[in-house]
Amino acid sequence: MVPQLTRAAAPEPTHSAGSGRTAQPATIASIAAEAGVSVPTVSKVLNGRPDVAPATRSRIEALLEQHRYRRRKSRGAGGQRLLDLAFHELDSAWSIEIIRGVEEAAAAAGVGVVLSELGGKHRPHQEWLDEILARRPLGVLFVLSSLDATQRHQLESRSIPFVVLDTAGEPPDDIPTVGSNNWSGGLSATRHLLGLGHRRVAVISGPPDVLCSRARVDGYRSAHDEAGVPIDPALTRYGDFYFDGGYVHGKALLTLRDRPTAIFAGSDMQALGVLRAARELGLRVPEDLSVVGYDNLPLTEWLGTALTTVNQPLHDMARTATQMLIDLADGTALPSRRIDLATTLVIRESTAPPSR
Amino acid sequence: MVPQLTRAAAPEPTHSAGSGRTAQPATIASIAAEAGVSVPTVSKVLNGRPDVAPATRSRIEALLEQHRYRRRKSRGAGGQRLLDLAFHELDSAWSIEIIRGVEEAAAAAGVGVVLSELGGKHRPHQEWLDEILARRPLGVLFVLSSLDATQRHQLESRSIPFVVLDTAGEPPDDIPTVGSNNWSGGLSATRHLLGLGHRRVAVISGPPDVLCSRARVDGYRSAHDEAGVPIDPALTRYGDFYFDGGYVHGKALLTLRDRPTAIFAGSDMQALGVLRAARELGLRVPEDLSVVGYDNLPLTEWLGTALTTVNQPLHDMARTATQMLIDLADGTALPSRRIDLATTLVIRESTAPPSR
Repeated sequence: MVPQLTRAAAPEPTHSAGSGRTAQPATIASIAAEAGVSVPTVSKVLNGRPDVAPATRSRIEALLEQHRYRRRKSRGAGGQRLLDLAFHELDSAWSIEIIRGVEEAAAAAGVGVVLSELGGKHRPHQEWLDEILARRPLGVLFVLSSLDATQRHQLESRSIPFVVLDTAGEPPDDIPTVGSNNWSGGLSATRHLLGLGHRRVAVISGPPDVLCSRARVDGYRSAHDEAGVPIDPALTRYGDFYFDGGYVHGKALLTLRDRPTAIFAGSDMQALGVLRAARELGLRVPEDLSVVGYDNLPLTEWLGTALTTVNQPLHDMARTATQMLIDLADGTALPSRRIDLATTLVIRESTAPPSR
Repeated sequence: MVPQLTRAAAPEPTHSAGSGRTAQPATIASIAAEAGVSVPTVSKVLNGRPDVAPATRSRIEALLEQHRYRRRKSRGAGGQRLLDLAFHELDSAWSIEIIRGVEEAAAAAGVGVVLSELGGKHRPHQEWLDEILARRPLGVLFVLSSLDATQRHQLESRSIPFVVLDTAGEPPDDIPTVGSNNWSGGLSATRHLLGLGHRRVAVISGPPDVLCSRARVDGYRSAHDEAGVPIDPALTRYGDFYFDGGYVHGKALLTLRDRPTAIFAGSDMQALGVLRAARELGLRVPEDLSVVGYDNLPLTEWLGTALTTVNQPLHDMARTATQMLIDLADGTALPSRRIDLATTLVIRESTAPPSR
C-alpha cells in the first residue's frame, strides 16, 4: 500500500493587504468584487462547476485561499448526509475490510457512503474533486491517496473536512490521520522468528519510499539488535505489496546459496507469493521455511497452512477514521488528530523452529 | 449467496373507479384530493419523510399504487447523478469483484456509487428505503437482496428503476436481472472430473432453497447422466457458501467409508474449506482428492495448489447490471430484461485423474 500525501504549505497566517487585515471575514461578494467577477461566478467555482474560464477560476481559487474563505457548512445537496470514501485502488480482500468498517460507522450515524476509486492514482484528478465540490458531502475519507496543497485548500474553503486512512503516510501534522503501529508490527513478527531460533531471517517490505515499509523494516532491525543477531543486507527486500512482490522476491531469496530459514512478508498477499515460491522449490512450510504475513485478512486463517501474521486492525482503523470525519463535520473537537492503532502478532501454522 | 426476490403481484392493469378510467394520469393533487390530505403530505410520502402518520402514509401509498402514479424523473437531489448499490452482505473477495465492476461502469458514465449493506437481511428495512426515496438516486442495484411487492411499488411510483444482480434468484419476469449460467457451470465442472476418470464425485452446493444452488446440482446430475455414471445421493450436500460450509461437509464426505475421489464445491470459499478438511485428514490434492471451486476469485490462482474453478464473470456481470440501470434511468429501452453471462471452467492444479 502506497500512501503519499504531499506536504501542503501552511496557509498564510495573515489576511492579505486586499482584505485590509480587518476582522471581517471574506464573503462571496467581497471575493467577487476583488476578482472583478460576478457573485454567481464565484458560486460556480465554489460548486465545482466546469463553466468558468480556467484563468478566472485560478484567480478566484487564489483569492479564496488568500482570504482563508470558509463556506458555511452544508448538510449536502438535498439535505442528505453522505460521505465520500476514496480508494487509491480497490484490491480484493484488503479493501473490503476497510469498506466494512466505514459502512458500519457510517450506517450507525445515518450517513451514506459514496465509494470511488482513483484509478490507481495517488492524487485525485480535478474532475473527481469538482464532483465532490458539487455534491458537498459532509466529508471525504482518503485511503492511501493524497491531496496536493491546492486541492487541500479547495476542500478547506468549502468547509469539507477530510481524514486520511493511511497506514503509513507522512501527512502534515494538522491533517487528521488514522493508521497503525507498523514499527511494532515489524518488531513483534521478527522477535517471534528469532525466538524460534531462526538466524537467517529475511524481510520483504513494500516500496522503500513509503513510510510504513520502512517502519516495518526498522522494527525488523530493532528485533535483531536486541537479540544480538547480525543482519545480512542481502536478506532485506523492497517490492510491491501484492502477490507478485512476494513471489518474485521469495524465489530470489530462497535460491540464494545460504537461503533464509524464515521470511517476514510485508502483506498477507506477499506471504501468499512466498508460500507459492516455496512450494515450487519443494520447500515445506513450516518445516523448511517459516513465513509471517502482515494484515491478518480472513483468508489467512483458511489457507492449507494457516498463516502466522501481524494483525493490522483495518476494520477498526476504518471505523475510527469514519467517526473522526463525522465528528469533524458536526463540529466536534477531535481529542487527537493522529491515531495509530496497535498491531498484534497472530501465531498460526506457518512458523516453527528451524530444522537445521 | 442467497438471492430471493419475493414475487410481486402484477400491478392492476386498469385505473380504479376513483380515477374514472380516464386517460388523465394521476397527479399529486388528485392523489391528495382522493386521500383527503394536503398536497405537501403526499409530497412528504413521496420523499420518504418520516413525519406522516403511518395510517395516512399507507392510504397514500395504496392510492399511488392503485393509480399507478409515476413521479417525473429527477436527476437526484442537487443535480448529482448517483446510483445506490445494495449488498445483502459484504463478504471479502467476492463482493469486491462486484464493486469494482460497478465502479468501472458508473465512473465511465459520470455516476457516483453509494454503497450500502443490508446487514445480512435479504429485504431492506423501511428506513433504508426511505433514505433512497429522499435521496432520489438514478437507480438502485440490488445484489442478492430482495424487494417485496410494496417496496417494489414504492420505487416504481417514484420512477426509481432497479436491477437485481442475482446469480440465481427467481424474480418476476419483468424485473431486470443479470446473472450467470449456473447450470452450465455445474455441468462443465462435473464433466471435467468424470472425464479425468473419477466415479465417486461429490457436490457441495449452497442452500437448497436458492435457485443457483439447484441449477449447479442439476448440471452435476446431467453430466453424470450423459456419462452413464450413477449418482450416490450421499454425495450431494447443501450448505452455506462460506468457508465453513466447505469445511464441515468436506470433513463429512471425506470420512465416509467409501469416500469420494473428487469434490465439486459451490464457491471458491467452500473449496478452501474442502482443501483444509483434506489436509487435516492427510489427503493430498490432487493426488488423493480432486477439488473444483466456483467463482474464480483472484486468490484461487495464488493458493499453494492453484484451484481449478468455474469462472463466474462477477466483474462483467456487475458492469452489465450497472449499464442496464443507467440505461433505464436515461429512458433507453433494454434489449433484454434478463441477461445471463456464460461461465467457463478454468483448469489449474487441484484436479487430476484418480489414483485408485
